[in-house]
This record gives sequence, C-alpha cells and structure tokens, in this order.
Amino acid sequence: MANQAPPTAPRGIEPALEELISTFNELNSSVVEELDSEPSPLEFMRFVARNTPFVIRGGSSSWTARQKWNSSYLRSAMQGQTVNVAVTPYGNADSPTASPEHGNTIVLAKPHEEPQPFDEFLTYVTRQETDPEFPSGSEVRYAQTQNDNLRDEYLTLFPDAQKDIPFARIALQKSPDAVNLWIGNSKSVTAAHKDNFENVFVQVLGRKHFVLLPPLCHSCMNERLLPPATYVRENQGLSLRLDEGAEPIPFATWDPDDPQTNATPLSSHARPLRVTLDPGDMLYLPAMWYHKVTQSSVPGDEGFVVAINYWYDMEFSGTLYPLVSFLRTLGKSSET
Amino acid sequence: MANQAPPTAPRGIEPALEELISTFNELNSSVVEELDSEPSPLEFMRFVARNTPFVIRGGSSSWTARQKWNSSYLRSAMQGQTVNVAVTPYGNADSPTASPEHGNTIVLAKPHEEPQPFDEFLTYVTRQETDPEFPSGSEVRYAQTQNDNLRDEYLTLFPDAQKDIPFARIALQKSPDAVNLWIGNSKSVTAAHKDNFENVFVQVLGRKHFVLLPPLCHSCMNERLLPPATYVRENQGLSLRLDEGAEPIPFATWDPDDPQTNATPLSSHARPLRVTLDPGDMLYLPAMWYHKVTQSSVPGDEGFVVAINYWYDMEFSGTLYPLVSFLRTLGKSSET
Repeated sequence: MANQAPPTAPRGIEPALEELISTFNELNSSVVEELDSEPSPLEFMRFVARNTPFVIRGGSSSWTARQKWNSSYLRSAMQGQTVNVAVTPYGNADSPTASPEHGNTIVLAKPHEEPQPFDEFLTYVTRQETDPEFPSGSEVRYAQTQNDNLRDEYLTLFPDAQKDIPFARIALQKSPDAVNLWIGNSKSVTAAHKDNFENVFVQVLGRKHFVLLPPLCHSCMNERLLPPATYVRENQGLSLRLDEGAEPIPFATWDPDDPQTNATPLSSHARPLRVTLDPGDMLYLPAMWYHKVTQSSVPGDEGFVVAINYWYDMEFSGTLYPLVSFLRTLGKSSET
Repeated sequence: MANQAPPTAPRGIEPALEELISTFNELNSSVVEELDSEPSPLEFMRFVARNTPFVIRGGSSSWTARQKWNSSYLRSAMQGQTVNVAVTPYGNADSPTASPEHGNTIVLAKPHEEPQPFDEFLTYVTRQETDPEFPSGSEVRYAQTQNDNLRDEYLTLFPDAQKDIPFARIALQKSPDAVNLWIGNSKSVTAAHKDNFENVFVQVLGRKHFVLLPPLCHSCMNERLLPPATYVRENQGLSLRLDEGAEPIPFATWDPDDPQTNATPLSSHARPLRVTLDPGDMLYLPAMWYHKVTQSSVPGDEGFVVAINYWYDMEFSGTLYPLVSFLRTLGKSSET
C-alpha cells in the first residue's frame, strides 16, 4: 500500500477532523473502564448512550463453559462432528494483504473455508501452538465463521454458555442476532474493522488483546476500496484468487500496531485503547468502534483460545449513526 | 440579514451535509413520540441514547402547580415580592434583531431587565393578552431569567412543583442544575437556539408551541457571529445599545417558521418537528436540539402562560458531543 498516496481531506476539513479527535481525547478516558460485576440494564444503557466500552473482570467466571471447557470436554461434546474452518497462510483472514498473485496489489484476503472433523481441527490448532517440532510456516486454522455458529454447528456446546446477556437483552429490548464461537491460536489476527452491532465479548480460554478506536477516528483508519480475494488450495499451498464480479469493499488499511505504515495525516492523533481479556472476562465493544484483535494462549494451558461473542443489532435511529456515516461520506468526497 | 451572503460550505462538504440530513430524516420519525405516562429511568435512558425527544401527555396533571396555580393563588403566594422581568419591544428577548440604532445591523437583542412587583407584572401580562383596550405596540414583559429562579426568587412556589424529575435524576445520576419558571403571554417568542442540557419542560398553564431540529441540522441554521446588544429604557421607549467590549456570539439566524429568509443552501432539507404542549404535558428536549418556542393562552383562561423546566447537565464524554462540535468547526472553517 505504500505505493498509494494517502488520501487528502478537502481544504478546511483536515483541521476540523483533527479538532474532532482531540476533543474526543480530552473528554474521554484513555483506558477502558473496568467493572467487577455485571452492570444493571440502566447502567449498561448509560455506556450505550455514551458509546463507550467497558470490561467486566471475571464477568463470565461462573459460566459452565468457563468451568468445564477444555480439550477433552470439547472433543467429547463434538465427537464425530465436522466444523467449518477458515484456512489462511498467515492467520490473515479478512485482512488487507499484498497479493503476490496480483503484483502485490492490496486485496481483502478472505480465508479458504473447509469442513474439518472437529477433533482433527483442535489437534492442529493446539499442536501448532505448543509443539516446538511443528513445522513453522504451516497454514493457520481458525474457527471464526461469525454466522451464529454457537447456535448452529456448535449447538451441543450452546447450553454451556448463556442464551443471551441479560443486561443487554433488557436494555436493548432484543435478543442477540448472532452468538458466535471462536476457536484458534496465537497465529490468527483479526484486522481492525468495525461492525454495526453492540457487541459483548466473552473470553473462555486463553487471552484476546483488543486495540480499540472510536468511530469518529474514521479519518485515521485510511479506509480504501479493496478488491476481495479468497484463498484456494493449489499445489499443496494457498493462493489468492480475486472474487469474480465482486464489488470492491471499503476497509481500514491503517494498523494501529504499525502506525507509520499506511498512515493518514490524522492517524497520529488517534489514541487507541488497549485491553486484554483474561479467561472469564467480558468486554462491551460499542457499535461502530474499530477493533483489532490478537490472541495468545495462557502458558501451561492446552494451547488454544476460545471466545464467544453476542451481537445485538445497533440502534440506527437517533443522531449517532447518521453522524458516523457522515464521516465516511466526507472521506469519500475527499477522494473525488 | 438579507444583505449578508449565505455561508458556503467548502467544495465537497455540502453534498455530504445534505446526505447527513436526509439519512437522519429517513431513519427517524417525523413526529414527536407521545407517551401517556412517565417512562422508567431505563426507558428514558433509551431516548437519551438516541438523543430523541418525546412528550408525555398529562405527565404533570397531578402536580400541585397544575391543580392550584391561577392568578389569585400566585398573587397571594408572591404577595409583596419583586421579580426580575425581561422587557422588550416585540417579545424578542435573546433574538437576532435588526437594530435601527445601528443601521439595521443584526444584533443579538438582550432584554432590558428590571425588578417589578409580581402583582403588577402579572396584571400587565394578562391585560395585554385579554384586554382589547390594551394599547397595541406596548412593550412585552416576560419572566424568563433561566437562572434557577424557581429555587430563588419564586422559592415560595417551589413546593408546588416536583423537586426534580425522578426518571431523569435516576437515569442521569444527577440533580437538576437549574429549575426555571417562565411566566408570559403570547407576545413573547424564544428564537431557535440550543443548550448543552438535557431538558424536561413542564407546561402548567397555557400552551407552548415547539419547533425542534436535531443538532446535526447545524448547517441549516445559518449560525452567525452577532454583536450582543441590550435594550435600555430611553425617551419612554426601548433602545438597543451594543454591549461594550463584548465578543460577538454565534447564534442561529434561520427561522424555521420563515424558511425563505436567511436560509442556507441546506435549510430546505431540514424537517422541523412541531409539538404543542397543553397544560399538564411534559416534553423531553434532548441536549443540543435547536428549539424555537412560541406560546398562547388557552381561550377562557386568565390570559397568561406558565411553564417550568428542569435542566440536567449533559454528558460530554462519549462520541456525540465531539461530533456535534465538529459540525460547528466545519461550518466555521467554511467561512475562512
């Protein structure tokens, strides 16, 4: 991406955008607020109103999933079942990636998805994480379908989790649109992106490391239209193939962990919030916040990372969604 | 103001601002939602989160103020007391006004304020409203200090009102910054403006007619820097004198009830919400919403209009306040 000039805001806009970010930084905490127990629906709604994240330390420590899930329990519960696995060479599912097959053009790399016996999948993930003999440079596997899989292909495990998050269901007056299970190891990284959901993230095994940026940091994220491409197995490796006839997808290309690369003139003003979820922690990730997620296994554990997240549809009425969309429109108009 | 060219947004911004307003209009109701009883703190917080107004029909009908207040009760309670009265020639306190004393320059006209015996003030207001013999073109008087006056100069009346609005106090976790009493007649108009408060407005006698615009309509309001000027009594009339050494004040100059005058290129895209409060109604006016307020007496009543409003400090953290401030900054940068 270094060969593309960073986008320039129309004259007059850039100082206003800089002031927007600095005003936010002045008025908001530079750390994620920590609670030691679940909020009431009203307390939760105050965070939703402010569109501000919080973490509940030990919020899911009494869940059956947290108490019981380990390698042998999961293998037993999922015995004989096949699951959808995302396969990539570098753990880069849904990430901006320079494609060697296309002259190093930046594409949005989507994983090769294939069914694998659960048992075999889990063995691969844990051995890659813990076995020093495991061939380095091997492909990376991640169960991350984000299609309500805990109420579908992992249904046998669903009773070990909560059906929903009561404080969120009561406050938002809706059930979750999706309950997603994530199983992987430290090789997988989720690139910074945002979703139109109120998100409650529950750490079960291992750790997740979040880097968070508020929606008003749009101008820092260097969002670009990327052609989508999908990995395919080919010659015993993985190659990227452009999705035929697919429209390019707007995607953030600035990585807050590599701030000098792909920066916009405003990226340096962003103040990313960083928070690590330990096993048993819960995170409220407000709608439209950018989040980059990495993960690590806990030393001495079995070497895999498991999390569950609950997606509640966000509120589109009111003033916040139109204002955040406006930032994207402003950014687009600056490119023409 | 017709002699000033309307502000032009920087190239590229205006279509984005137009889309902002149309997105808001598509996603939000074109009428103010009506409740028939007070919301719970959680229900209220959902409106705060959406920054969306609502009206509670009959919400204050059981208040002592609503039951007991009339001309003789108020005169008796306030017997012998003097109150601060705002005096203007046209009911135009805190309004953009062409000043004949300054070559018809538009100033922000502030009222002449003077102490008057309450009894005399109320007689003037009601006679002006109801007596056909009352000289037309007489000065207009309005008790509208907005300085917590119901807990100060009208303290004897405060026990007839609620100390605060419980659903707001519990949801927002604070007591009101100010409880204001308003007494006037149909000659007084409050020009469109916005406040950094969550506002609960309680109609006691007469009617108030609100025109409401969301904060993201900033670009429709033709905000201009106006020199402040104050009315003084002079030669048995009222003249405007510029406030010496005072900084000009940014103020909306577009009147949604006179949409062709002082319009910006975007004013026609605004969709003002209109709601009338009858005696006993309550309005939640969210922070930073523009509101223009007129009033009328109820035929057969004693000819004056009384309301109480509760101002709760708004939440400045989170994403909404910085985003709304950003719209003003954008507007300013377009003028340089």
